[in-house]
Amino acid sequence: MKKAKNVVIAQSGGPSMVINASLVGAVIALRSKATGSRVGRIFGAVHGIEGILKGEYLDMRKISEKKLQAIAKTPSSALGSCRHKPTAEDCKRIFEEFRSRDVGYFFYIGGNDSADAARIVADEAEKAGYPLVCFHIPKTIDNDLRSCDHTPGYGSAARFVACAVKGDDLDNRALGGVKIDVIMGRDAGFLAAASSLARQRPDDGPHLIYLPETPFSETRFVRDVKSAMKKFGRCVIAVSEGIRGKDGIPIGAKLADGERDSHGNVQMSGTGALGDALARIVKAKCGIKRVRADTFGYLQRSFPGVVSETDREEAFLAGAAAVRAALESGVNKGTIGIVREEAKSYKVAYAVRPISDAAKDTRSMPREFISPSGNDVTSAFVEYARPLVGELPDCAVF
Amino acid sequence: MKKAKNVVIAQSGGPSMVINASLVGAVIALRSKATGSRVGRIFGAVHGIEGILKGEYLDMRKISEKKLQAIAKTPSSALGSCRHKPTAEDCKRIFEEFRSRDVGYFFYIGGNDSADAARIVADEAEKAGYPLVCFHIPKTIDNDLRSCDHTPGYGSAARFVACAVKGDDLDNRALGGVKIDVIMGRDAGFLAAASSLARQRPDDGPHLIYLPETPFSETRFVRDVKSAMKKFGRCVIAVSEGIRGKDGIPIGAKLADGERDSHGNVQMSGTGALGDALARIVKAKCGIKRVRADTFGYLQRSFPGVVSETDREEAFLAGAAAVRAALESGVNKGTIGIVREEAKSYKVAYAVRPISDAAKDTRSMPREFISPSGNDVTSAFVEYARPLVGELPDCAVF
Repeated sequence: MKKAKNVVIAQSGGPSMVINASLVGAVIALRSKATGSRVGRIFGAVHGIEGILKGEYLDMRKISEKKLQAIAKTPSSALGSCRHKPTAEDCKRIFEEFRSRDVGYFFYIGGNDSADAARIVADEAEKAGYPLVCFHIPKTIDNDLRSCDHTPGYGSAARFVACAVKGDDLDNRALGGVKIDVIMGRDAGFLAAASSLARQRPDDGPHLIYLPETPFSETRFVRDVKSAMKKFGRCVIAVSEGIRGKDGIPIGAKLADGERDSHGNVQMSGTGALGDALARIVKAKCGIKRVRADTFGYLQRSFPGVVSETDREEAFLAGAAAVRAALESGVNKGTIGIVREEAKSYKVAYAVRPISDAAKDTRSMPREFISPSGNDVTSAFVEYARPLVGELPDCAVF
Repeated sequence: MKKAKNVVIAQSGGPSMVINASLVGAVIALRSKATGSRVGRIFGAVHGIEGILKGEYLDMRKISEKKLQAIAKTPSSALGSCRHKPTAEDCKRIFEEFRSRDVGYFFYIGGNDSADAARIVADEAEKAGYPLVCFHIPKTIDNDLRSCDHTPGYGSAARFVACAVKGDDLDNRALGGVKIDVIMGRDAGFLAAASSLARQRPDDGPHLIYLPETPFSETRFVRDVKSAMKKFGRCVIAVSEGIRGKDGIPIGAKLADGERDSHGNVQMSGTGALGDALARIVKAKCGIKRVRADTFGYLQRSFPGVVSETDREEAFLAGAAAVRAALESGVNKGTIGIVREEAKSYKVAYAVRPISDAAKDTRSMPREFISPSGNDVTSAFVEYARPLVGELPDCAVF
C-alpha cells in the first residue's frame, strides 16, 4: 500500500452556480472510505493558486458534512477564486510549498484558463521531478471547453438566461418596442443561444439571436430589427457580449475599455456599454421610439435558487470523478470530460482526458447549431441544450 | 335588484411579477356567484386605456379557469399595458365607448400614474354625468403608493433584488474588488433598500446602499467606498437608479438622455449608463482595479419563478377586494389600500380609500428606514420588508 499523500484543491476563474458542487463532490470523495489510507490531509487553497503561493488554506477534513452540503448548494466559489497564470517561478514556489506539506495530489476546478494553469503546474512538476498527480475539474458557464459535451455551470447559467428572456419577452409583449439583452460569453455563443429555450409559442422572443461565431454587421442588424418589428410588432434581441465585426475584435471590448487579466482576456462583463451602443443604433436607424437594453451581467452565474439540478448533480459527480481518476486510473494528470451517451433519454459519462483538451483554446458553437441566417439557432441546438437546463417555468398568455 | 352592468378591466404602467394575479383575482371575483346578476360582460381592454380608445378587448368570461390560474402565475401584464394619461378628449371617447357597451364598472390596475388616469376618468365621468363605478387596483414594484403599507409587486421585485445581491456578494467574495448594482426605483429607494435583505452574516454585502431620498455626493461616495474596502477588503454597493444630487435631478436621467412618457417621467431603466459612470468614479478616485457594475433592469419585475408567494396572494386579494368594494361598498370610486395590522405575526387587511390617495404624488422611504449615515438602511426597514419577500435561499460560506 502506498504512503498517504496530502491534497491541495482550489477553485479558479469566474464563479458559477455549481462550482461549489464540484468542490464538495471532490472533497466528499477524498474523505470517503474508498480512498483508504492513500489520502492524508486535504488543503483547500484560498483564492486558487494565489492561496498556494501565500500558504493560505482551509482544512477540508474539519468541515462538517452539513456545512459541505450547504456549500454545495451555494453559488460562487466558496474557497475564493483568482485569475492567475502561474509562471515558472511561481511553480518553483508551489513545489516548495507542496513539498513542505507533503502534497501529492492537486485538483484545480475552473475553465480553460484554469485548465491551462493546471497543465503548467503538471508540466513544471514533471520537469522539476516533483511527484504530483494533477487533475483539472471542468467548470465554465461559457460551455466552451473542448473536452466536454457541455460544462458544469453552463446548464444553470443557461437556465437563468432562458428564464430571464422568457420574462423579458412577456414584459416586451406588454409595453412593446425593442428590447436588447446582452448575455455573457466571451468567445462562444452557447449562453446567448440558450435564450432560445425561452420560446414556448411561435411569436415568443427572442426574435433575433446574435452570437460571436457569426460576424456582426450593423447594416444586417438594422435590417433584421426592422423585419422583426414588421412581423411581430415588437422585438426581443439576445446578444452575446462577445459579438465581433469582420475584424474579429469584440465590439463590447472596444466600447468597455476594460482591463486585461494575466491570461490576456479583456474585461467585457460588468458594463452596459454594448447594450447601450446597440440601443442607440436601433433608435437612430430603425425609427423606433421605445428601445431598452439590459446586460444580464454577473447575475447569470450567481443567482441563488436559479439552478439546473442536472447541472448541479453533474458538477458534483465531475468532482468525484476527478478524485477517482487521480487515485485509481494510474494516470498522473488529466481533466474530466463529460460525454453524452447515445441513449433514448439524456445520460452522461465521465471520462479521463488529457488536460490539454481543456486548456487554453476554447471551442465555439458548431455550425449545425447556428441558423443559416446567422441571427438565430437551429433546432439541433435546442435539442442539445434543453436537457441541460431542466424544466422551465410555464408562462401563459391570453 | 339593479340591472346588470358590464365591466372594463385593464392593466397599466410597468409590468410586475404579480399584476396578473390582481387581474385574475378581480376577474374570478367578477365571475363568482356572489356578484349575482349585477355583473354582465367582462371586457379586458388590451393595452390599458389605449385599448379602450381603440375598442380592443378580450372577453374575460370566455377564459377558462385553468388559463386564468396559469395567467395568475405568469409575470408581466397579460392584457398588455400602456403609459397613457387620458385627456378630456380621450375621456369623451371613453364614455362613448362605455355607453355603447353598457359599461358600468371600470377597474384599472397600476401604479400612481395609473391611479391618476383612473382618477381623471372617474372625475370626468362625474362631470359628464356618466354613471360609472371606477376602482384603481394598486401595483408597483417601486412600493411608492401613499395608499398602501406596501404595494403588490414590491415583495416579488424585492425578493429578486435580495437574491441577486446575495449571489453577487458571494461572487464578489470570490474575486474581490468593487461591485456596483443599480436597482430600479425612480423616486423611492424601497427596492434598492431591499438589497439589505441579502445579508446573512455581519460582513455580507451590500456594504453600502444609496437611495434617492439622500442627496448623493460624489465626495462622500468615494470616501464610503475607500472606508468599506479598508474594512472588508472588498465592497458591494446597491444603488437606486433614482439617486440625485443636491439639484434634485436624477443622475441617471441626465446620463441616459432618455425619452419622456405622457406622465412626464424620464426613462431611466434599460440602460447601463449610471452604473458605468459610478464604476468610472471608483476606478479613477479610489485606485481600485477590479470594478464592475451591473444594472438589474427589467429582470427585477418579470423573472418567472422568482416570486414572493405572500406578494402574489396579496395581489390576488387586492383585485378581489376592488370588486367587492365596487359592488358592495356603495362608494363609486376608490382604490384599495393595503393595511398592515397590529398583530403578532404579519397580517394585512384591504381597505377602500380615495383614488387621490394613490394618484400622482408618490411616497418616499420614511426617515426611520434610512440610516443616519445616509448610506444604509435601518433595522426598522429590515423588519418592515422581511415578511414581504418570503424566506430567501440560505447561502453558506466557509
